[in-house]
Amino acid sequence: MGSDSALINGVESDATEDIEPFNSDWMRKYRGHTQLVLKPESTEQVSEILKYCNEHTLAVVPQGGNTGLVGGSVPVFDEIVLSLARMNRIRSFDEVSGVLVADAGVILEVADQYLAERRYIFPLDLGAKGSCHIGGNVATNAGGLRLLRYGSLHGNVLGLEAVLPDGTIVDDLSKLRKNNTGYDLKQLFIGGEGTIGVITGISIVCPQRSNAVNVAYFALESYEKVQQAFVEAKKQLGEILSAFELMDNASQRLLHQASGRKLPLGGDHPFYCLIETSGSNTEHDSEKLQNFLEYVMGEEIVLDGVLAENQTQIKELWSCREGVPEHLPHWGGVYKYDLSIPIAELYDLVEATRERLGHLIGDTDEHPVVDAVGYGHMGDSNLHLNVATRGYNKEVEKILEPWVYEWVSKRNGSISAEHGLGVAKKAYIGYSRSETMVKLMKQIKDLYDPVSIDEMWTCERMC
Amino acid sequence: MGSDSALINGVESDATEDIEPFNSDWMRKYRGHTQLVLKPESTEQVSEILKYCNEHTLAVVPQGGNTGLVGGSVPVFDEIVLSLARMNRIRSFDEVSGVLVADAGVILEVADQYLAERRYIFPLDLGAKGSCHIGGNVATNAGGLRLLRYGSLHGNVLGLEAVLPDGTIVDDLSKLRKNNTGYDLKQLFIGGEGTIGVITGISIVCPQRSNAVNVAYFALESYEKVQQAFVEAKKQLGEILSAFELMDNASQRLLHQASGRKLPLGGDHPFYCLIETSGSNTEHDSEKLQNFLEYVMGEEIVLDGVLAENQTQIKELWSCREGVPEHLPHWGGVYKYDLSIPIAELYDLVEATRERLGHLIGDTDEHPVVDAVGYGHMGDSNLHLNVATRGYNKEVEKILEPWVYEWVSKRNGSISAEHGLGVAKKAYIGYSRSETMVKLMKQIKDLYDPVSIDEMWTCERMC
Repeated sequence: MGSDSALINGVESDATEDIEPFNSDWMRKYRGHTQLVLKPESTEQVSEILKYCNEHTLAVVPQGGNTGLVGGSVPVFDEIVLSLARMNRIRSFDEVSGVLVADAGVILEVADQYLAERRYIFPLDLGAKGSCHIGGNVATNAGGLRLLRYGSLHGNVLGLEAVLPDGTIVDDLSKLRKNNTGYDLKQLFIGGEGTIGVITGISIVCPQRSNAVNVAYFALESYEKVQQAFVEAKKQLGEILSAFELMDNASQRLLHQASGRKLPLGGDHPFYCLIETSGSNTEHDSEKLQNFLEYVMGEEIVLDGVLAENQTQIKELWSCREGVPEHLPHWGGVYKYDLSIPIAELYDLVEATRERLGHLIGDTDEHPVVDAVGYGHMGDSNLHLNVATRGYNKEVEKILEPWVYEWVSKRNGSISAEHGLGVAKKAYIGYSRSETMVKLMKQIKDLYDPVSIDEMWTCERMC
Repeated sequence: MGSDSALINGVESDATEDIEPFNSDWMRKYRGHTQLVLKPESTEQVSEILKYCNEHTLAVVPQGGNTGLVGGSVPVFDEIVLSLARMNRIRSFDEVSGVLVADAGVILEVADQYLAERRYIFPLDLGAKGSCHIGGNVATNAGGLRLLRYGSLHGNVLGLEAVLPDGTIVDDLSKLRKNNTGYDLKQLFIGGEGTIGVITGISIVCPQRSNAVNVAYFALESYEKVQQAFVEAKKQLGEILSAFELMDNASQRLLHQASGRKLPLGGDHPFYCLIETSGSNTEHDSEKLQNFLEYVMGEEIVLDGVLAENQTQIKELWSCREGVPEHLPHWGGVYKYDLSIPIAELYDLVEATRERLGHLIGDTDEHPVVDAVGYGHMGDSNLHLNVATRGYNKEVEKILEPWVYEWVSKRNGSISAEHGLGVAKKAYIGYSRSETMVKLMKQIKDLYDPVSIDEMWTCERMC
């Protein structure tokens, strides 16, 4: 870096630190070869770095916990890595309003633990919580497990502090729940994936933590019944419903085969659902959930069901959902799609995929595909279509892509419900956005980043 | 209009229709003198109108239900009025996902009634619901009575259709709860007050309607206790809490004097609060509310309280809150401020205002001010400061403005929590937004409306 040393003095990563983790993602799917990782400790340092890099046309990629699934935080063009890891302070918390203000580099679980001690909860939860940064969560508009109950980050984030490519500090760190004074510009950074600026701080409204959590797992005979159960759950459990997850037969069968784990219900049913409730009164919640289960079984919407009776059983039931992505790589490879599809047609895609793969699917080694399975956040119309294979296979890939995207596009769905575009899906945005929308996005990109110092920030990346 | 007649053919308002209501607001505070009201029936017609006006530099003001409080929909510069009144179709509703798609000109109460028949609820409620349009609600990012429970429109609006000043149709009418494919541009139009485009359709996720509604009204000895009661309500009522409203002693005293209405509780207490719960089970909710009231009275957080036992009593208790703005004009004039203030300091402003007005306040006619009162959405840190006067009075106005805005600004509050900027507060944006933020907003305005065909859309309006 030579002449840049004055700039990086004090913010460069420790010389003894291994640079390798910054050059790859946790799935080891994307790879970069950065020579320099900068770890600023303040918003002013982030501003100085970006200003300098902008003036010297040096490419930069911001990196939080580096837990993304689409390569968005990996220096695939060998950019300078701007790590937010040292910006990890809780700035303030108001115990009356529930408003938390914190640096972008605070780890999600650390923030949630801080809130738990004060009987509050972070309105977002996801598998990577032990590593991911709250700034990265906001930059990627993470969805996760609590969206059904607490809504999206677009509603919960009250304010942002961000640095534009030219070093301008966007000081929009409001702690107010209501502020109707002009355009809500912070929204562009929520889900903007760091392409128009680096988030350095967030302000977010947090709900009270629930005392009571209950979980049920049940079997259904058709996707039609799954939809009926979902409507009934919203009706009867309304305000305490905190998750409604769908798992198809294949997902549970493969989970059983790969993990050897016994499933909670006997028999072999086409669909399974997991319901979680969170509320302030254990007795009331149990009664509601019991009534709901009696009703849906009486009406033959549900075939069979089980209610967790303690913390261990709650974890066991959740593992039937969370264990699916964990164990599917067992046979060698998985093609993963994270899709939003209108709820009535959501499961059709899994069936269409199986049909399309046809003779490639089978139980024996000569078949490249083990099965296509569907699971996901039914409550958010968010399907995870996973195709488990006996190793990565070009023939299978060609059959699936872009066919899956075309199928979703025809139904006005989204080719990336919660994972974002990153480098993985940048070429496919046209399947979920019109030409007009892509053009309008390019305008915004050009407005905030005319120099495009970062390869990650070029229109190429977005379109 | 002469040569414009081809354009306006079929979209002009009925020749027999009185044009007067389009030229003034319902408070009769703002006045315009438009000669032409256009009432398009389709998005394509809106596009043609704006394109034509843009090319011919004709100023336009979009108008929904014209129920705003800041003059944002009144043709104060004698612009052409673009009324959305004829675009009033419900386009679709999905009974499983709860997603409603509708024209911008649908009246809020009509939309809510449509949803009520299907056991759903519009996630927004406000006094003007019988007249206001859902498009106008979104354009002004209306807050209202259900925000505490269902969150802001930034979280609930899933998609938008809007027309830019040059006639471009922004086709972002997604019905998906999750769609992380690029910048969330629709957010700029939510709360953009029609200054960068006209909203013609919205897609919004609606929650299940609650079967059970309970209301309590109680008295407290200090603002400190009000905050304690709020924290306790969130803790004990959590998921069923749907309103926490604050009314000070003066607001209730003046309501009593102006209306002759008997107040629900005897004695004379410094503060009153109204709590509403909405849930799926009447018995559970009543028990929670009863337990809460017993606890806060046992702990001496609350001095006295009453619980509504039927629909009539619910209305009576609500009228103690809603009757305040209705009856305050009784003495001749009211200076109204709609402010967001950090919750700990929220009530300080009312006391500071009384102190500042000093000898001007009094019970007899020689005193220009009757009293300064505070009430509002405690749950959202949103204070309505109202100064009741014996007629509009320049001396009083000068004492209050810009002092109130300065006071709020020093505490990083908002000078317009939910009403917007309109023409009333455009000059004051600097009290709630930094120079950087105002500059960034101007960039957006220039990007979407370089010609600024509409006086309402000039930077003047925003800054």
